[in-house]
Amino acid sequence: MQTRFYTLTDYPKGLPKRDLFKLTTQTLPELAEGEVRIRNRWLSVDPYMRGRMSGIRTYVEPFEIGKPMEGGAIGEVIASRDARLKEGDIVNHMGGWRDIAQLPAEGVTPLPDIDVPEQAYLGVLGMPGMTAWTGLNVIAECKPGDNVLVSAASGAVGSLAVQLARAKGCHVVGIAGAAHKLAWLESLGVEPVSYRNRDADELGDAIHLASPNGIDVYFENVGGDCLEAALSQLNEGARIAVCGMIDSYNAEQPTPGPRNLVQLVMRKAKMQGFIVTDHWDHYPEFLKEVAPQVAEGKLTYKETVKEGLESTPDAFLALFEGGNIGKMLVKLSP
Amino acid sequence: MQTRFYTLTDYPKGLPKRDLFKLTTQTLPELAEGEVRIRNRWLSVDPYMRGRMSGIRTYVEPFEIGKPMEGGAIGEVIASRDARLKEGDIVNHMGGWRDIAQLPAEGVTPLPDIDVPEQAYLGVLGMPGMTAWTGLNVIAECKPGDNVLVSAASGAVGSLAVQLARAKGCHVVGIAGAAHKLAWLESLGVEPVSYRNRDADELGDAIHLASPNGIDVYFENVGGDCLEAALSQLNEGARIAVCGMIDSYNAEQPTPGPRNLVQLVMRKAKMQGFIVTDHWDHYPEFLKEVAPQVAEGKLTYKETVKEGLESTPDAFLALFEGGNIGKMLVKLSP
Repeated sequence: MQTRFYTLTDYPKGLPKRDLFKLTTQTLPELAEGEVRIRNRWLSVDPYMRGRMSGIRTYVEPFEIGKPMEGGAIGEVIASRDARLKEGDIVNHMGGWRDIAQLPAEGVTPLPDIDVPEQAYLGVLGMPGMTAWTGLNVIAECKPGDNVLVSAASGAVGSLAVQLARAKGCHVVGIAGAAHKLAWLESLGVEPVSYRNRDADELGDAIHLASPNGIDVYFENVGGDCLEAALSQLNEGARIAVCGMIDSYNAEQPTPGPRNLVQLVMRKAKMQGFIVTDHWDHYPEFLKEVAPQVAEGKLTYKETVKEGLESTPDAFLALFEGGNIGKMLVKLSP
Repeated sequence: MQTRFYTLTDYPKGLPKRDLFKLTTQTLPELAEGEVRIRNRWLSVDPYMRGRMSGIRTYVEPFEIGKPMEGGAIGEVIASRDARLKEGDIVNHMGGWRDIAQLPAEGVTPLPDIDVPEQAYLGVLGMPGMTAWTGLNVIAECKPGDNVLVSAASGAVGSLAVQLARAKGCHVVGIAGAAHKLAWLESLGVEPVSYRNRDADELGDAIHLASPNGIDVYFENVGGDCLEAALSQLNEGARIAVCGMIDSYNAEQPTPGPRNLVQLVMRKAKMQGFIVTDHWDHYPEFLKEVAPQVAEGKLTYKETVKEGLESTPDAFLALFEGGNIGKMLVKLSP
């Protein structure tokens, strides 16, 4: 049986060029004891993957040049030499960026029995959802009544963060760009603020209008002007959960940080970076709280779906150009 | 009786000009019930006072134009209409920047009975010492064996922070400028690193040489290149206690922040601003721990002393030019 997978031909500088991603076909070896073979149905592309393309160990190992790339994926087991998994199981695993994955069974998890579409486990009930929940609850210690600000608020992580904060009874402001994203945020009970055609000072003023009582919690996905604007509006004791800074991921030169970082002292504020995998022991708690709300439609989510394995690099690159609303996914035909 | 005090004639932009500080003489009114009159012996000047010269409420009220400036001071009660205080008491209070203070007794504290020079309560056993202790223990959660970095390490706060960390069994690196400051740090068992003639990258390399196992705790007094260099050396789970950012206090234009703030995510690090007054309930604990060590000479401190009330503005301004080793004080003649 053959597998088709993407490799990197080199580590990019700046925004990766499309031709760095090479589609390769290989014949799979016999299935070894303890392995499973999976036909992927859904592939995830996520901003954090840019960090694995730098050739430098950050909090995950870099992708190896010429080796299959990796990422979250949902597929169907088509062969198994592991007692725990059987043909026909629908599973979640890290063998993405390919059509057929063959890998040790220990990193492969059958989907829970909850009435949601299977690809939800790559988004609202998967890593991005868990990231929103962790950043809001564990890192930013969000409480009912807090004034909450979320950047990239219509993205996979941000759109759950705003809804979880609303469900807690918070006043929530969401930063986004395109009009249809702002409209979606408004429909979720979020005060939408556009970053477009605004410098950091103007963005700060717009946040102030949307949240006249300041900001207690900032869920940071973007960095750059969003961070500077947020810092200008902090209340005393504010907490900033730093999930990511997508603004800087493709910068060819290091970009200057916010000019008002001293606000951390003035406001006695905390700013903390986190990686969701460190908090995965909370996943059952997260699932118990969030899954029923997703199943009942109380928590909404959106997907931006590209079709076919060949669209995976474009789907990934679109993340850096605001090309997604909600979770960006690649759907593979059976 | 007359009092001589300093007032601000205007709010400065950038480094305050000397002639913004005006010495005024006034006749004091009769002592009211509940008031005390104090002949000051020692005045404190501290970097945070620059923040009170901005005309903007930060975490303390701004100085009022034309009104007596304020600051920590040690003096002798020369008249009292409060039952708690009597003539001859040596007291700590906020009526600095003047020779004779007359003020309500409630903010006036007699010095504890510990065998240390009275001016120690403006430095190592006062606000700066308590700041070092709080930042290290409460905010940065410093543990034995941590690799600790302190900027402005030979200053009033930094020089206690490095010694407290050494006493915990930490590996400690201290950033300073002048050779005699670096030599003092070395004599305290601290790895000294000079910031002079180094950009942020070079300073990061120097810190790496001095602390090859990275940085777990950074005690931040400076900002600017020191912060960028520190961020480049963080270990996973590092904690940054942000006490101040003296680099920016006199900036006429906002200065850009560190270009590598995303390291907070990469290293899952926490950066937290704090104001020592919020933690003053720990003062007895601090005093119990630190005072005996100061009395026994186990904790060293230095003072830079200017003579006479008229030297107070210069003493203050010298803080921003590296003009002090240890605590900057003004000594008043009796």
